[in-house]
Amino acid sequence: MTTASPAKWHLAHTTWFFETFVLARERWYRAFRPEFRELFNSYYMSVGVTLARPHRGLLTRPSLAEVMEYRAHVDLAMAAWFEHGAAQGRFVDGLDTVDADERALSAWIVELGLAHEEQHQELLLADVKHLLSQNPLLPAYVPAQPAAFGSAPKLRWHACAGGLVEIGHAATGHSAGARSNGHAAPEFAFDNETPRHRVHLEPFELASRPATNAEWLAFMEDRGYARPELWLSEGFETARTQGWAAPLYWIEREGRWHEFTLSGLRPLDLAAPVCHVSGFEADAFARWSDARLPTEFEWEHVAEKLSVRGRFSDTQRLHPERAPAGDDAPVQMFGDVWEWTSSDYAPYPRFEPWAGNLAEYNGKFMCNQRVLRGGSCATPSGHVRATYRNFFPLDARWQFSGVRLARDGA
Amino acid sequence: MTTASPAKWHLAHTTWFFETFVLARERWYRAFRPEFRELFNSYYMSVGVTLARPHRGLLTRPSLAEVMEYRAHVDLAMAAWFEHGAAQGRFVDGLDTVDADERALSAWIVELGLAHEEQHQELLLADVKHLLSQNPLLPAYVPAQPAAFGSAPKLRWHACAGGLVEIGHAATGHSAGARSNGHAAPEFAFDNETPRHRVHLEPFELASRPATNAEWLAFMEDRGYARPELWLSEGFETARTQGWAAPLYWIEREGRWHEFTLSGLRPLDLAAPVCHVSGFEADAFARWSDARLPTEFEWEHVAEKLSVRGRFSDTQRLHPERAPAGDDAPVQMFGDVWEWTSSDYAPYPRFEPWAGNLAEYNGKFMCNQRVLRGGSCATPSGHVRATYRNFFPLDARWQFSGVRLARDGA
Amino acid sequence: MTTASPAKWHLAHTTWFFETFVLARERWYRAFRPEFRELFNSYYMSVGVTLARPHRGLLTRPSLAEVMEYRAHVDLAMAAWFEHGAAQGRFVDGLDTVDADERALSAWIVELGLAHEEQHQELLLADVKHLLSQNPLLPAYVPAQPAAFGSAPKLRWHACAGGLVEIGHAATGHSAGARSNGHAAPEFAFDNETPRHRVHLEPFELASRPATNAEWLAFMEDRGYARPELWLSEGFETARTQGWAAPLYWIEREGRWHEFTLSGLRPLDLAAPVCHVSGFEADAFARWSDARLPTEFEWEHVAEKLSVRGRFSDTQRLHPERAPAGDDAPVQMFGDVWEWTSSDYAPYPRFEPWAGNLAEYNGKFMCNQRVLRGGSCATPSGHVRATYRNFFPLDARWQFSGVRLARDGA
Amino acid sequence: MTTASPAKWHLAHTTWFFETFVLARERWYRAFRPEFRELFNSYYMSVGVTLARPHRGLLTRPSLAEVMEYRAHVDLAMAAWFEHGAAQGRFVDGLDTVDADERALSAWIVELGLAHEEQHQELLLADVKHLLSQNPLLPAYVPAQPAAFGSAPKLRWHACAGGLVEIGHAATGHSAGARSNGHAAPEFAFDNETPRHRVHLEPFELASRPATNAEWLAFMEDRGYARPELWLSEGFETARTQGWAAPLYWIEREGRWHEFTLSGLRPLDLAAPVCHVSGFEADAFARWSDARLPTEFEWEHVAEKLSVRGRFSDTQRLHPERAPAGDDAPVQMFGDVWEWTSSDYAPYPRFEPWAGNLAEYNGKFMCNQRVLRGGSCATPSGHVRATYRNFFPLDARWQFSGVRLARDGA
Repeated sequence: MTTASPAKWHLAHTTWFFETFVLARERWYRAFRPEFRELFNSYYMSVGVTLARPHRGLLTRPSLAEVMEYRAHVDLAMAAWFEHGAAQGRFVDGLDTVDADERALSAWIVELGLAHEEQHQELLLADVKHLLSQNPLLPAYVPAQPAAFGSAPKLRWHACAGGLVEIGHAATGHSAGARSNGHAAPEFAFDNETPRHRVHLEPFELASRPATNAEWLAFMEDRGYARPELWLSEGFETARTQGWAAPLYWIEREGRWHEFTLSGLRPLDLAAPVCHVSGFEADAFARWSDARLPTEFEWEHVAEKLSVRGRFSDTQRLHPERAPAGDDAPVQMFGDVWEWTSSDYAPYPRFEPWAGNLAEYNGKFMCNQRVLRGGSCATPSGHVRATYRNFFPLDARWQFSGVRLARDGA
Repeated sequence: MTTASPAKWHLAHTTWFFETFVLARERWYRAFRPEFRELFNSYYMSVGVTLARPHRGLLTRPSLAEVMEYRAHVDLAMAAWFEHGAAQGRFVDGLDTVDADERALSAWIVELGLAHEEQHQELLLADVKHLLSQNPLLPAYVPAQPAAFGSAPKLRWHACAGGLVEIGHAATGHSAGARSNGHAAPEFAFDNETPRHRVHLEPFELASRPATNAEWLAFMEDRGYARPELWLSEGFETARTQGWAAPLYWIEREGRWHEFTLSGLRPLDLAAPVCHVSGFEADAFARWSDARLPTEFEWEHVAEKLSVRGRFSDTQRLHPERAPAGDDAPVQMFGDVWEWTSSDYAPYPRFEPWAGNLAEYNGKFMCNQRVLRGGSCATPSGHVRATYRNFFPLDARWQFSGVRLARDGA
Repeated sequence: MTTASPAKWHLAHTTWFFETFVLARERWYRAFRPEFRELFNSYYMSVGVTLARPHRGLLTRPSLAEVMEYRAHVDLAMAAWFEHGAAQGRFVDGLDTVDADERALSAWIVELGLAHEEQHQELLLADVKHLLSQNPLLPAYVPAQPAAFGSAPKLRWHACAGGLVEIGHAATGHSAGARSNGHAAPEFAFDNETPRHRVHLEPFELASRPATNAEWLAFMEDRGYARPELWLSEGFETARTQGWAAPLYWIEREGRWHEFTLSGLRPLDLAAPVCHVSGFEADAFARWSDARLPTEFEWEHVAEKLSVRGRFSDTQRLHPERAPAGDDAPVQMFGDVWEWTSSDYAPYPRFEPWAGNLAEYNGKFMCNQRVLRGGSCATPSGHVRATYRNFFPLDARWQFSGVRLARDGA
Repeated sequence: MTTASPAKWHLAHTTWFFETFVLARERWYRAFRPEFRELFNSYYMSVGVTLARPHRGLLTRPSLAEVMEYRAHVDLAMAAWFEHGAAQGRFVDGLDTVDADERALSAWIVELGLAHEEQHQELLLADVKHLLSQNPLLPAYVPAQPAAFGSAPKLRWHACAGGLVEIGHAATGHSAGARSNGHAAPEFAFDNETPRHRVHLEPFELASRPATNAEWLAFMEDRGYARPELWLSEGFETARTQGWAAPLYWIEREGRWHEFTLSGLRPLDLAAPVCHVSGFEADAFARWSDARLPTEFEWEHVAEKLSVRGRFSDTQRLHPERAPAGDDAPVQMFGDVWEWTSSDYAPYPRFEPWAGNLAEYNGKFMCNQRVLRGGSCATPSGHVRATYRNFFPLDARWQFSGVRLARDGA
């Protein structure tokens, strides 16, 4: 799949990020191999030439061993960088001109580099899953866990009054670090989450949990994939030409539905959240359910009152599971499956991309994509927050993406 | 171009609309040719099979003469329909069961049919222009008008305080007619303009007039098409693969820029609004101008205070021209060129598509498109209003589309 | 279909041929519109720019009326050219320097122009048929003829000893005319039919008539389209991806096979030769029949002993019909359907393309195509001969192409 | 490149060949993993499902280690098979019913399996070269050899009288082994080389050596890639759309031509045979040279008088080199570069594919390809012979393919 990258590339690219944006600023640092600056550049046109994504799979050289050497080389240099920077307020002996702002900026970039690597940890899992699914042998990536039994809690609706609410993160990019003057660092956020601003919401209701595989089966049995009135026009056409008739990775064997997971092929767990559906499918399912997808603002407004807990990649289960018994608040808002929203991925009012090369991190992708919220079972724990915005085109299915319904309130 | 349709098809399809949605409800009406129900269906899947758009150009039969007969047939029947309906409060002698609601509904559909035909009048001009532009002879569609001279007024910025404002049209679809009970009909609006709702706006400034060809040339001379940092990533890639280096229809001849118009090839008028640029180009131009595109809400909030006057297709000039001297309000908000906004084409809160077949009119296209506002020199006079939403994908260039800048306010 | 051209283009292009290759050589001739030199050039790169074939359908201008004027203009000039040339041995009064060679060359080009126009007469019918077939109304081009009844004669095999035989036409291009010095002109032939040369043939047998629709149905009922072992690998893949399950223009209606013809849709005539099959299908059918396609040399060796009689376009039936009762010789070798051979379209030994611009007529297409022989019901009478070579890619189906079987002899 | 396969796949597929066509016939053999029967099937539809070639690159599992185990498993079984078969005239103890024919057949399949593996040894080198060439680092596969110096011998023409000659191999497929009854085995040949048959040749002349890089440069400097009159129409269009302006792997660095080889990037050796040109380029070059490509029959008629000696892969140089000083016979007919002929890849008269599954080995590819002769520097020594027919589409460039000229004789 041309939108996926091989594991070796992910390993090298996350290392490249530290080398390019932190170490390359230091006079004492010597690049592992200068050619890597272009070879493992993803899309930073201001950094130089990039290797087209569909070509990444062709990189038989450098070998995996050499990439691991590269990582060790950069890890060592980063350790030295920390020691110098932290202990002496400068990065190189005798280089006293590095001022506090510069220090804060570099510290912030390191934090960004960690968040960046976490993003690739998740992408790597999604890419590996897709690659293994293409293999007729359907090999497993991790051992299977004992299956959970039981059924999902009944879906309930949480009412919310709306009104003029605040949305977005208050961080102000990499100047935040500088301003903090060594005090407790403000929480990191991507530029696309900023600035915090006001949005008017009509009263709405949000589903207590994501839609389940059982509910999706009901949609399929009601001919959901064959009824154009349920779909966006482009969605129906995409489903038709791509032959979609079930979520990605669903496989029928001897009359029963199975699901390919990172633990191999398993019987479909009807109580688990549906996963690997595109935004088009999510939208059609919502219409079939006499509901709709939430806007990203509705989602965030509810989520910001909850603690960021859930089934993340640390569990090593790497597959969504049945929701816990509900209580007063929606469950599974974080982890398990990314939740498609109805919001186009657009800049917030007065959005400013980060400065310099890093302006390319998020802003230039703000078209023809939809926002997803909440993280998944493949997201590293600690990576997401209520304001976090993920984004994919409406036809993307290989991420761990599911659906939470919403509807208009009274 | 697969997104364009031949003139004969436009002629037949607009007639088909009246036949299908008005006359086919009447017992006394006999279809001209029953096969036309599918042949000239554009995209109403609930009506039946459609002819794929790229196939429309293959319709050598029915001949133009037969299509004109079809139009005469339907015109005649519509005249009879009006006479019956208006004079006797019913559509057929002796059919007293048609109640007021049904009458109001049909009257409303006729109004929609007219608005629909106006949309196709504009599309037909855009399609004809594209078709003629593919012809090495560059033939003219209308005689050339005497050229205007002079320069465009200086661009100024109109400040607006924003706040919680109301957006959208108060019409409520075809139930509106029923409720009007013969009283003065409320203004017609498409379902995508409704409902009227509240949106919060930050302070902003709107340009006094659209960007001109002279300003676009400056963008080009500053290497605007070659600088990735100005573009959305997908926009830059599209420009590169499509070979965009100037607006559509700009042609260089002997070192001077010309523009293909519906009056044939003409030297570029530097004072006129730039036209036939895609949303991607508009976005890059705005960034280069240290500005941005307005949201559709900002645009509408300013426009609703202005009267709907401008250079529409009735002038028969069919090309945008120099802005009049500015005064206190922005000029050329209506007519001349459609203005790209930064807003994705999305449903308004609590949007409900029209009922029945007509649900397919607008709602199913609400993805991967951007909103344009204000009408153009090819739009029939009386067709647009402040709340009117046109929409095209970001890469569309064959409409009469231009740019008005906006920027954040104090 | 991008390989087809509109009728208007065929009309203009055949006129263009005379204008470009005959009249443009004359000082007294004034072009109708100089732009037509490029506009109606098919593929002569030495003549100048051409309009890409897929763009031909976009030529709304010049109108049909103007194209007919163009034809009248050139017809008139050609009449003058004949009068001058024939009566006075020169083309212009007072221009005595035109010698006999030049005269003979021009006379030969006129003959070529006629043959060229005949080729386009057939292409026009095939293109019109394809265009009408895309129309859901399935309109007819000519009135239906009374259907023939009866069954096809039983297939018999004509044995041929082979050996070292002569193949090809003895004409030697446009120098032939010059050498004839006013004596009886040698028969015209295309350069690709020359030179006459020796080929060694093993003993073989040729079928007495083309394969019929009844025989093709048997192939289909024996799962012929679904058995890879019968097909060339590329053919099977093409059939699969194109969804071929019957010849082009076969349509099943209420459980019975029909065939779209230039007289509209008709029940399939089981006794008629199968038509509109690709070379891939012909090859698979032959293998299924425990036979093979003849080489073009085998075909010609048999055909050169027969007179060139058959069902050509002059009959105005424009569809192949049942073979006459057989006698000692194969029937329907000429007319009805072009017969796919197993021979790749390649130059004969010592082949020399015509000189000048006309070198592009045939030679540059000698790759990835197969030879068809014998003409069809859409070929003008008098156009083909035993040495005539038609050629199309193996996947072409829109020509009137059928199958005659061959097998190895004893 | 979708026409290439990864090295791991080549390793497994050649092993699969022995397992499927030899070992699977034995009751005592247990498959390594039954799923491999489909996983490593290349294109034998009669064997079962295959993995589409573009998917081969996605096979991260089985790992290389497991593939090597697979090879060891099959090697061991083949050793046992030889021991049983050779010593006891049967393949399994107690299985006396295996008769001589069956034994001969299996022996013949083993021979075919070796020839098959040799073909993949060459393909693997071509595929690896293409893969490495996509890597911006241009890594080497083998260490560089000391470069040869000097210039190529002058090109001379070898005249040949032609006439009715014999072409092809006298082997008669796998019945040959059976007939040999333990006597000296007849030389192995592929079915596409058979049967031996008569062809009539006109007098011709063959170049004494392949065309050199120096000669190709002269073609380029004479604008060879930009002159349509030199090219087949499809070839010129391919060159234009693919951007061909030099042979594949030629790279200009600082104004000098280099060539990517399996030893990395090297300055172009002007005296060496040109390599990695498509059939389209070869054809255009020949026309530019006032010559033509030889037919495969002309080539074979000359070659069968020569001994099969040349620079094959055993030299480990893996790149063509300067021709030796000429003598009376053409040089470099074998090895160095495959030589494009003008012959379409077609079955010989009375060709019969091998029986059973192996019918799919060659015959089903006999369309839209051209024959190449003589082997290359990447061909295993002992693999080719005068009758050997290689075949690729006219646009293939990644094989070690070059040009030897021919022209008509007196």
